Amino acid sequence: MDLTGVNIPVADARKQEAITDEQAQYFLDNGFLVVRGVLAGEELALVQREMQRLYEKGAAGVENDPDYMYGTGVKSGQPVLRRIEYVIDKSDPMKALLGHPFILRSVEKLQGRNLIATWDSMVLKAPDEGVIVPWHRDAAVPDGCADPRPIFNVDFYLDEADLKTCLWVIPGSNKWTKAEADARCNQPGFSTDDAIPVPMQPGDVIFHNIEVLHGSPSGDGNPLRRTVYYEFRPGEIEAEFGPHTLEYLSLKQQVLLDCIERRKAAPYAQGETPFLYRPNGAFAVHAARRPEQYRYGHEHYWRR
Amino acid sequence: MDLTGVNIPVADARKQEAITDEQAQYFLDNGFLVVRGVLAGEELALVQREMQRLYEKGAAGVENDPDYMYGTGVKSGQPVLRRIEYVIDKSDPMKALLGHPFILRSVEKLQGRNLIATWDSMVLKAPDEGVIVPWHRDAAVPDGCADPRPIFNVDFYLDEADLKTCLWVIPGSNKWTKAEADARCNQPGFSTDDAIPVPMQPGDVIFHNIEVLHGSPSGDGNPLRRTVYYEFRPGEIEAEFGPHTLEYLSLKQQVLLDCIERRKAAPYAQGETPFLYRPNGAFAVHAARRPEQYRYGHEHYWRR
Repeated sequence: MDLTGVNIPVADARKQEAITDEQAQYFLDNGFLVVRGVLAGEELALVQREMQRLYEKGAAGVENDPDYMYGTGVKSGQPVLRRIEYVIDKSDPMKALLGHPFILRSVEKLQGRNLIATWDSMVLKAPDEGVIVPWHRDAAVPDGCADPRPIFNVDFYLDEADLKTCLWVIPGSNKWTKAEADARCNQPGFSTDDAIPVPMQPGDVIFHNIEVLHGSPSGDGNPLRRTVYYEFRPGEIEAEFGPHTLEYLSLKQQVLLDCIERRKAAPYAQGETPFLYRPNGAFAVHAARRPEQYRYGHEHYWRR
Repeated sequence: MDLTGVNIPVADARKQEAITDEQAQYFLDNGFLVVRGVLAGEELALVQREMQRLYEKGAAGVENDPDYMYGTGVKSGQPVLRRIEYVIDKSDPMKALLGHPFILRSVEKLQGRNLIATWDSMVLKAPDEGVIVPWHRDAAVPDGCADPRPIFNVDFYLDEADLKTCLWVIPGSNKWTKAEADARCNQPGFSTDDAIPVPMQPGDVIFHNIEVLHGSPSGDGNPLRRTVYYEFRPGEIEAEFGPHTLEYLSLKQQVLLDCIERRKAAPYAQGETPFLYRPNGAFAVHAARRPEQYRYGHEHYWRR
C-alpha cells in the first residue's frame, strides 16, 4: 500500500486526556490506532525493568508454570520464550499501568462505561529469533453478537520496533467477513501490498481490534522486543456471550478498581487526573473490595 | 369457590426428596403449592425460638433500624411490628434454613440450576391486631421477560394458621393479565368466592408465585403469626432484567454456597442428602468464598 501522503491520525498521550472523536472514528473504521508517549520517564523505566526481570526469568527456563510459554527458535531450534501470561499478578507497576487514565478514558470512549479488563500478557520477540508472524486475527467477536462496540487490545511497546521489524496492519480488515479474512491469511508469504507498517518507540501504544489483520515479517538480527497486551471488552458483550462467566466479570471489576487506586498512590502518577470507573445498570458496583488475587485463571471461568 | 371434592396436590417433605413432577405442574398452573412438614423437631423449635427473639426485640420497639418495619394496629392504633428484613443475617439457624435440601431441590426443579436467593424476611401478624390483607400480587415479573420460569416465595410457617385467619389464594391468577388482576384486587371487601383457604401447621411451607393473587381476612382475636419468606429467582431472568446488578447475583451465590455448607454442619441435618448447588454456563461459580456479609442491602444493588 502506497502510504505517500496518507494522513493517519496519531494520538499523543502527552497532550491529550483521551483519544479524540476523530481518532476514535479512525480506530472504529480501520481497527487500529497509534498513541505516542503513553509511558515515559520514571514509569517507562520501571515497567521496562520489571518486564526485563520477567523476561530474564523466563529466558533462563521456567518449568511447570503454564504462564511462561515457549516456542522454537527459527535459528537455534532451541526453546525460546515467546509469551508470559498474567503480568499484572507478577508485578505491581503493571497493576498501576492497568489504571492508566489516558488508556481507560479512551477505552471507555470506545466501549462504554462497563469496560472489563480481561487478558494481560507480555509477548516477546527473542533476539535474532524473530520468526514471521503470519497475517492473523487475534480472536473472533462472539457468534451472534450484533453489538458494534469493538473488543481490542492495548499494546504497550517497551522496545523500539523499526520499519524492518515492526507490526504491519491491514486497515479496515476488522470489518471483513471471516471468509475474506481467511482468504487473505492463506496467501503465501508475508505480502504487504495492502498493509501499512506501524513503527513504534518505547512507551508508544497501539490499540488494535481483535479482528484486524496484523502480522510481522521475519526479523533477521532483530533485537529483543517486549510488548505488553491488555485486552478490554464491553461488559455487555461479555455478559451476554462470554467467554467468561459473570463471576469473572464481577471479580475483574474489583481488580480494575484496585489498580486505579494503586495508580493514584504511584509517585509518577501524581500529575494525572485519575480515571473514574463508574459502571452502571446491571454492571454497577456498590463498593470496592480488595481483590483476593490478581490472577483469575481464564480456564476456571469459561462458560460450560 | 366450592372446594368439596377438589383434589389439591400437597407435597410432604417428610416423605419426598423434592416436589414431584405433578406437584411442580400444579404449582406452575395455579401459582401455589403446599408442602407439609418441612421444618420439624429440633430445627422447628430452634427457628421458632430465633424468630421469637427477633419478634420480641422488634415488638419492644427498635428505632433507626430500617430492617424493623412497623404498621398501625387496627385495634390499638399503636405502632405494630409487621416485618423484619434480612433474617439470615440476624440468625445462624436461618442461614442453615436457606440450605434446606428439599426446598432447594424443589426450587431447582422449577427454576433451573442457576437459582438465586434474593429476599429473606419475616412477616408478622401481631396478636389481635390482624388487619385484612387485601388481595394483591407481591410483585410483577419484569417487563419484557418471556422466560416462563416462575419467580416465587417460599413461606415457612412458624405458627398455625387456621381456617379463620389463614392465607387465601386464587388458583391460576398468576396467569392473569395485569388488568384482570387489578380488576379483582379493586373489588371491595375480601370476597373469597373464587379463592381457596390454605390452613397451615407450624413447619409447613407454601410456595407462592409472586404474581398469584393472595390475601387474608381480618383476624379478630388472632394469635401471633410469624411467617418467613425466602424469595428465589432464576439467575437468567435476574441477569437480563434485574432488579439487582450482576454483582449482587455473584455475591448471593456465595451466600447460598456458604449456607449449604453451614447446614451440613447442623446437628439436625445429619440425616439429609445435602443440596448440590451447581450453577452452569454464565452462572458457573469457580470456588466458594466466605461471604463478607449476609446482608447485601437491596438498595445498594439496584440497576441504575
